[in-house]
Amino acid sequence: MTGITPAPFTADDYQARMERAARQAAEAGLAGLLVAPGPDLVWLTGYTPTAVTERLTLLVLAPGRDPVLVVPTLEAPDAERAPGARALTLRDWTDGKDPYAATAALLDAQGRFGISDNTWAMHLLGLQKALPGTSYASLTEALPMLRAVKDAAELELLAAAGAAADAAFEEIRTVAFAGRRESDVAADLAALLRRFGHSQVDFTIVASGPNGANPHHEIGDRVIERGDMVVLDFGGLKDGYGSDTSRTVHVGEPTDEERRVHDIVREAQEAGFRAVRPGVACQEVDRAARAVIADAGYGEYFIHRTGHGIGVTTHEPPYMIEGEEQPLVPGMCFSVEPGIYLPGRFGVRIEDIVTVTEDGGRRLNNTAREMVTVD
Amino acid sequence: MTGITPAPFTADDYQARMERAARQAAEAGLAGLLVAPGPDLVWLTGYTPTAVTERLTLLVLAPGRDPVLVVPTLEAPDAERAPGARALTLRDWTDGKDPYAATAALLDAQGRFGISDNTWAMHLLGLQKALPGTSYASLTEALPMLRAVKDAAELELLAAAGAAADAAFEEIRTVAFAGRRESDVAADLAALLRRFGHSQVDFTIVASGPNGANPHHEIGDRVIERGDMVVLDFGGLKDGYGSDTSRTVHVGEPTDEERRVHDIVREAQEAGFRAVRPGVACQEVDRAARAVIADAGYGEYFIHRTGHGIGVTTHEPPYMIEGEEQPLVPGMCFSVEPGIYLPGRFGVRIEDIVTVTEDGGRRLNNTAREMVTVD
Repeated sequence: MTGITPAPFTADDYQARMERAARQAAEAGLAGLLVAPGPDLVWLTGYTPTAVTERLTLLVLAPGRDPVLVVPTLEAPDAERAPGARALTLRDWTDGKDPYAATAALLDAQGRFGISDNTWAMHLLGLQKALPGTSYASLTEALPMLRAVKDAAELELLAAAGAAADAAFEEIRTVAFAGRRESDVAADLAALLRRFGHSQVDFTIVASGPNGANPHHEIGDRVIERGDMVVLDFGGLKDGYGSDTSRTVHVGEPTDEERRVHDIVREAQEAGFRAVRPGVACQEVDRAARAVIADAGYGEYFIHRTGHGIGVTTHEPPYMIEGEEQPLVPGMCFSVEPGIYLPGRFGVRIEDIVTVTEDGGRRLNNTAREMVTVD
Repeated sequence: MTGITPAPFTADDYQARMERAARQAAEAGLAGLLVAPGPDLVWLTGYTPTAVTERLTLLVLAPGRDPVLVVPTLEAPDAERAPGARALTLRDWTDGKDPYAATAALLDAQGRFGISDNTWAMHLLGLQKALPGTSYASLTEALPMLRAVKDAAELELLAAAGAAADAAFEEIRTVAFAGRRESDVAADLAALLRRFGHSQVDFTIVASGPNGANPHHEIGDRVIERGDMVVLDFGGLKDGYGSDTSRTVHVGEPTDEERRVHDIVREAQEAGFRAVRPGVACQEVDRAARAVIADAGYGEYFIHRTGHGIGVTTHEPPYMIEGEEQPLVPGMCFSVEPGIYLPGRFGVRIEDIVTVTEDGGRRLNNTAREMVTVD
């Protein structure tokens, strides 16, 4: 079980998405798109197999042809029940048969194809062997913005997921921190996300004291102490769409230095947010946030990009990173999450999901960005 | 979170596994193995990143060279704490840099490499582009039996997982079936697997009446009725090693036909089990089970292979399938799970995990294979 709950879209919605994807593929000079189980397939068809295994499941989208889902015979009954199934043809294959030959029969033998990033390498190798004249690009490289611009229904779902994460933060700031393990607070956070409607919890980072200086620290047994900074970064899927927010709280009164570092990150986050408007390159959001931190003398301690997109996953294009020249478009949705990480000491990160509007950005997270103290 | 809990092996164990893998790679004419996060990496290093994302993490094993783990800088602190970390060198790369160029520097530019099956296609494409002279085979194709022969400690863990699944079956047969939804019984099963020590539940198939005729039916809202056959197929990971067992129960007294079909499947399962001994080809296990079903006139209703390996995953080589000529070796561990599926009516499947011993097979599941009636 991947745990991805498809949002309640209709077969017509999925058909429109598949047509749009095929059109974009043609415009990019591709002979088609090949999509394995994962977020792209969920977005295009609403289908998630029970398990992703070595058995090939692959959506074939070719401009001007009807979509075909290649699927193991065993899994065909489940695939037929997918919300987008009415908009595609199932082509099933039986254990012991060669699924790559079956797929190759659907493809232009000299074509270049976009293939979903997370397709298993074994399947790509199988296709390359079956059709040596074909070539491939990862779907994100070929059509990075395929899922990036959200429609109104998607934005509503993302806003609802953000509001649920905010509700979880409002509750977590009232629980005891000092004397409890990070893993205890993380379990509280996960329970709160579920209580506020998340069907899947992707991460509940609780990084206290020196652990906060590791941006990807997950959950430890460290006992949180009075005087600790604690980075909280949590999110998951609610009704098939993602949440992801970070706040850094302090157990008891912070020192002047802790306040200063937190203020710098807050200003950086604000600067990143203010850079958001249609037509601005993604890298400008990163630069705006990074400049604040660099100017304050902490540039070497901001060791990751400023943000990532969010949608049917909690981690997708567009990326707010130096070198990404993609202009922002209304409906795009991504995190703005600068941080400062002082090795062996503490870390601070503040993160909101932001969507691009006609005249700027709109935050989908709205809890206090000032430093909150907890007990 | 992948939820895979590494078993408690030492750095020396992981070092021995990596050395064995590199040696097997050399014997197979490969310049090395490339292993992305997933079961192969868990087995080789004990390392599971917090999340598998578009950021490249890749273990490079080349004969005669020390193992290197290419890892995002962000995740290096977690990787350093992996149980096998002492036996390898970390090479970290920072957001915005090209991880494929960094990896390419470690590889023979004209070499042929085995790459783990579930490596993302985008990473394989990145490597193919960075080193156009290289070629690749999926790890399962190149070294299908890499993880197939379990050592004594692994067999102990698999036996414990099987015993826990058996304990779950003994409890589930005492709960109410009639009048409850499949999803209710499935939730009971998941809770029982966890109660008996599973850290991860991979599947809890409860397929009643006509749903039983879909071998991969997961969990539905169908209300189970008196007179239904119900296929139960459940498993997951306990202490990092898998369980997977199926029993088909009947709600109240079965008809003569239901008894007959169940008896045929039981005989087929027994025949598959009896075929297990060192030196016999995997396909012979499939043939032995299939012959019983075909001879009884139900051949067309046995629509999947007879079995699959199990270890740090619940689904891996060796496969008991026509065409698989790999001889069985003591220590191999796999399912024997024939079934008959009568569309629109009912299905029957009986499954045990079996390990190959010097003089035959040993079952790791030991609950009754006779048809059990439930209420």
